[in-house]
Amino acid sequence: MSENPYAILFEPVQIGPVTAPNRFYQVPHCNGMGYRLPQSLAAMRGVKAEGGWGVVCTEETEIHYTSDLSPSMEGRLWDDGDIPNMARMTEAVHAHGALAGVELVYSGQHARNFNTRAVAFGVDSFSVPEYFPAQTRMADKEDLRTLRRWHRNAAIRAKQAGFDIIYTYAAHRLSLPMFMLLSRYNTRTDEYGGSLQNRVRFLRELLEDTLEAVGDTCAVALRLAVDELLGEDGLTRDGEGKEIVAMLAELPDLWDVNVSDWSNDSGPSRFMKEGYQEQYISFVKGLTSKPVVGVGRYTSPEAMVSAVQQGVMDLIGSARPSIADPFLPEKIRTGQVEDIRECIGCNICASADNVGVPIRCTQNPTMGEEWRRSWHPERIPAAKKAEKAVLVVGGGPAGLECARALGQRGYQVTLTEARRELGGRVQLEADLPGLQEWRRVADWRLTQIEKLPNVEVYPGSEMTAEDVREAGFEDVIVATGARWRRDGVGRSLRSPIPGHAWKEVYTPDDLMAGADREVAGVNREVAGRLPQGRVVVFDDDHYYMGSVLAELLVGAGCEVTLVTPAPQIALWSQYTLEQPHILRRMKQLGVTMLPNTTLAEIEPGAVRLHNTLHAKDTGWMCDGVVLVTNRISNDGLYRDLRGEVGTTFNSLRVIGDAEAPNIIAQAVFSGHLAAQEFEEDVTGDAPNFRRE
Amino acid sequence: MSENPYAILFEPVQIGPVTAPNRFYQVPHCNGMGYRLPQSLAAMRGVKAEGGWGVVCTEETEIHYTSDLSPSMEGRLWDDGDIPNMARMTEAVHAHGALAGVELVYSGQHARNFNTRAVAFGVDSFSVPEYFPAQTRMADKEDLRTLRRWHRNAAIRAKQAGFDIIYTYAAHRLSLPMFMLLSRYNTRTDEYGGSLQNRVRFLRELLEDTLEAVGDTCAVALRLAVDELLGEDGLTRDGEGKEIVAMLAELPDLWDVNVSDWSNDSGPSRFMKEGYQEQYISFVKGLTSKPVVGVGRYTSPEAMVSAVQQGVMDLIGSARPSIADPFLPEKIRTGQVEDIRECIGCNICASADNVGVPIRCTQNPTMGEEWRRSWHPERIPAAKKAEKAVLVVGGGPAGLECARALGQRGYQVTLTEARRELGGRVQLEADLPGLQEWRRVADWRLTQIEKLPNVEVYPGSEMTAEDVREAGFEDVIVATGARWRRDGVGRSLRSPIPGHAWKEVYTPDDLMAGADREVAGVNREVAGRLPQGRVVVFDDDHYYMGSVLAELLVGAGCEVTLVTPAPQIALWSQYTLEQPHILRRMKQLGVTMLPNTTLAEIEPGAVRLHNTLHAKDTGWMCDGVVLVTNRISNDGLYRDLRGEVGTTFNSLRVIGDAEAPNIIAQAVFSGHLAAQEFEEDVTGDAPNFRRE
Repeated sequence: MSENPYAILFEPVQIGPVTAPNRFYQVPHCNGMGYRLPQSLAAMRGVKAEGGWGVVCTEETEIHYTSDLSPSMEGRLWDDGDIPNMARMTEAVHAHGALAGVELVYSGQHARNFNTRAVAFGVDSFSVPEYFPAQTRMADKEDLRTLRRWHRNAAIRAKQAGFDIIYTYAAHRLSLPMFMLLSRYNTRTDEYGGSLQNRVRFLRELLEDTLEAVGDTCAVALRLAVDELLGEDGLTRDGEGKEIVAMLAELPDLWDVNVSDWSNDSGPSRFMKEGYQEQYISFVKGLTSKPVVGVGRYTSPEAMVSAVQQGVMDLIGSARPSIADPFLPEKIRTGQVEDIRECIGCNICASADNVGVPIRCTQNPTMGEEWRRSWHPERIPAAKKAEKAVLVVGGGPAGLECARALGQRGYQVTLTEARRELGGRVQLEADLPGLQEWRRVADWRLTQIEKLPNVEVYPGSEMTAEDVREAGFEDVIVATGARWRRDGVGRSLRSPIPGHAWKEVYTPDDLMAGADREVAGVNREVAGRLPQGRVVVFDDDHYYMGSVLAELLVGAGCEVTLVTPAPQIALWSQYTLEQPHILRRMKQLGVTMLPNTTLAEIEPGAVRLHNTLHAKDTGWMCDGVVLVTNRISNDGLYRDLRGEVGTTFNSLRVIGDAEAPNIIAQAVFSGHLAAQEFEEDVTGDAPNFRRE
Repeated sequence: MSENPYAILFEPVQIGPVTAPNRFYQVPHCNGMGYRLPQSLAAMRGVKAEGGWGVVCTEETEIHYTSDLSPSMEGRLWDDGDIPNMARMTEAVHAHGALAGVELVYSGQHARNFNTRAVAFGVDSFSVPEYFPAQTRMADKEDLRTLRRWHRNAAIRAKQAGFDIIYTYAAHRLSLPMFMLLSRYNTRTDEYGGSLQNRVRFLRELLEDTLEAVGDTCAVALRLAVDELLGEDGLTRDGEGKEIVAMLAELPDLWDVNVSDWSNDSGPSRFMKEGYQEQYISFVKGLTSKPVVGVGRYTSPEAMVSAVQQGVMDLIGSARPSIADPFLPEKIRTGQVEDIRECIGCNICASADNVGVPIRCTQNPTMGEEWRRSWHPERIPAAKKAEKAVLVVGGGPAGLECARALGQRGYQVTLTEARRELGGRVQLEADLPGLQEWRRVADWRLTQIEKLPNVEVYPGSEMTAEDVREAGFEDVIVATGARWRRDGVGRSLRSPIPGHAWKEVYTPDDLMAGADREVAGVNREVAGRLPQGRVVVFDDDHYYMGSVLAELLVGAGCEVTLVTPAPQIALWSQYTLEQPHILRRMKQLGVTMLPNTTLAEIEPGAVRLHNTLHAKDTGWMCDGVVLVTNRISNDGLYRDLRGEVGTTFNSLRVIGDAEAPNIIAQAVFSGHLAAQEFEEDVTGDAPNFRRE
């Protein structure tokens, strides 16, 4: 260890009555499993501890049934019956010498109580989330005493479940203690409202209660939002955010500080880069002698060391990087820094929780699959017949992961790619504004493949069906990706848009192609140049691409109108927490946004827009149109070869976008699945994963 | 039975190899429990059978893991491991002599496979639902053979689980067989595309497979959408909808026919009345000798008898009326027609499934609570001390249900209501356009209370704290409702809107008050008249009220602008399937709809609107403003008395909107819960329901 330049990261840290074995701290994060899938959850958390995280925390854990976050799946400590479930997690974490932390939550106005049908206590009588037309009950002083009892009892249950660190939660605008702090929400006239001293009272009481109840053996942590990034409208690092820290400075055993709300704390990489929270949280250590944990999507050990050495934080908090690479600490410890599978900040992990399904990760296809498929982020079953040669056609995210994982298993793998550059869509998209980190999906896999002597890579090698036959492989995996449609057909329009053949109609492929770049499916006439002047971007994809291209075009001097049939701009990006950032960016760039609008017709120099809300048509002058609609699988090769399984080929499988266009995370998963299932009998009809 | 005027409804009906004991047929309906809560589900279905439904069906039941509807909770028959779960339901249904039906579903493009991460087969490569940027894989002919095998095997598993009726599902635009039928989706060039004969081929094959596999002992049903209410753009009763029925006329053992999509099939009462599907489905019986089941939210036995006698259907299909009153058949059989708890068509039941939580019902607070709380729609535990006298203050939905259920338990109940009319908000809202059926919430309870000699009702009796003390009750329940705010504070605005004191600013209470009606919290100066001319309705409630008032005002000659801070009009009503109808209605009425817009300021004769998408302000001339924002609990009485528990009072409880404003279903539930828990020790912190 003494020679490790990052040795400081492996120093133990005292936290109240417990000691973290190192500075790697997995802060609480949701995962879509929660109380429902305790075995899956324990296995996932256990892998983090195995990978070297010194502290591994839960997700939000409901302390009482009046704080029911259904349909989201979070932790539960409603009563003693929940202790065994939670204990599975602490046991899995302790097995690897790490500490287990639990984030106790009373949601207040953030709970809809859809399952329990209970009334939630609120600071006042507030609207509950997601437009459900219901309000909380204003907690009077007697109710607050009741709440304190619930919180205290949950802390005792948490201790019984084996937790070492027990949180009070006042962050993300997701809990009653935080709403108490905020003057714009706290309208109370009793001793819990008015002055900041009063607004802090309830939080202080919860901390004191917890310390008194379990502080003898458990550390008591406070997770606090110190800045809401709302300027004067909210908490700020040099305003009340700072004052709160000063008031409570020595009370908790640990400060876990961040920015609010969740979309800022888990800032998407398109908008927020490594270490982005330092400027907001660096003041905290100056106000307390207690250890501080902060986050900032750290993946580079240099940045971590710097954050510690500069006194920004004592513990490197991490949610997303620990999801993308549960073995990040261990890789730093053993000098395998280049092997870190770096988080790309796409927030697909968050989308799973937001949708209400188990967590997944673009970079780490094993995330969430630890229990049900017995997948491990670092280990994979050895090949049954290591001499077996496999051809993987296509070096995008699916093909790269498949070739890498097959190589890791020990097979003789040949990977071919039509383009000179490997990476497929992630490599192309990484050149678009803000998406640089997408490249990490390819980079990590290429780094790993280089170390595998049994994997050979042939870029610039387009394969026809005849080429594949001649290559003589018995087992072939087709990962040839997809291309964007150029006729406007997609989710909203089932027939081609009249006039889509106009020469100034572009697809995302055209815009990504660049002058000297080969991209399948581009219009050679327009490749290498962008539309000019007034451009209409028609977004029937509803994720990031439409707004990214709008940004590209504004940067190139275009006047952009972003049209979408959905009622919201980039609707699906709300699940990845990108949407508020996208809306802000589009506004800043002066992009005209037209939701509830379809593209009825294109003619040279204009489009006809149809507003579906009011059933009105509008002519709209433009010099170019970009169609971001459906994609078409490049599955010709697969279809050509499919009939030859059992004759020319022993096995043939199509994966990734070539099978069905989907998000990048699915392509990586698909490639990994194909590698895991290679030589396995997967023709059975039953799912080949376990169910809880 | 011979004297029962509805005897025809109790005739047995042969369905292939099985016999339904009567004509009451609970068609498949979702419930938010599905595979996750098998005990809750079996208990709920069992109560329906107990209540006299001759056939009780499942919800959508996934035949394979590539048809994974997560995060929705539906049935599963993925493999043999799912049989025991499903068998719980068939056993519960058989225990009461009813038949059990299962709706086998392969979703195709309707499945996102968020849990299984599998690729779904589609008719073509289509976008999956809810704007998730992924597509299906086009099923080629080999894939279709695989799909048939999956469907057939699921049918065999269904038979093993004890089902008597096994469905093929081609309705609601939720399954691959339906997408196959539709020319606007089916773009295939093989023998499954093109002519209607070809597009019907797959459905025919599934039916033939199922008959061959299980038809010896099970009836094979086809659930088909015969009209999509899209005119020439979709299936119609006199176009292809009819042709499909003609082509397959004698193939299934049972025709279950309806209109599509779900928002039309489960048409909200505001837009669609009892029997609304008859005009679309009446042709079916003319084309087949097999029994036909149809739906139409039937709650009156006369309409049911008429539907049978006129040859519209053989079996009275029901989802919602069977939820509102599981004992509807039994009440008709025993001549207790006035006791039927009639569905109000609010679709809160559907919202639960759409949100992803267990089913609930406005009229029937026991729905979904059969297992976990041991509640029964007809029975309730007897009072411990029947001589105990209870005062219920407030005769809205919460107070009425509480008084009724306490009365049913045997307590001596006194119910007081300030207004001369009973019913509270349901009675007021029932006079608004389309909401007539809300009145059923009060009507049913008043009918029941009339039969209870131990419940006394005092309308026109406002109670002050002093009145309550003087009345001398030891146990008091406060159900005094809520009133709409008149300052604009709510979900979006935390401070009063400047200028809200303008005399032409109205609340929903003002508009509902009418000239001769007392309503708490109204502005006496405006009560009894409506605003005139140009009116801005500011909807920060996001449910039905904003659009209902817009409709009221257009009817009164106003020119209405509906403004909402949400990105969608009536956003929450999407979960109750009302939103598409609301948008259509607003469009028809010429209402200008402005989503993404807040009300920044009011001045006499104008408002300043702020568009949040583009951060732009607009002046907007108007003669009146209606604020539909938050509500304020009328909890003064409760707060006044709260300190006297243990002295003046033995117990005091606040329920319904007086505790926390919420939807009507929650008020009824709250009243029922208070009645069930009366005299119980509920001070414990743990939830007092069982968990699976």
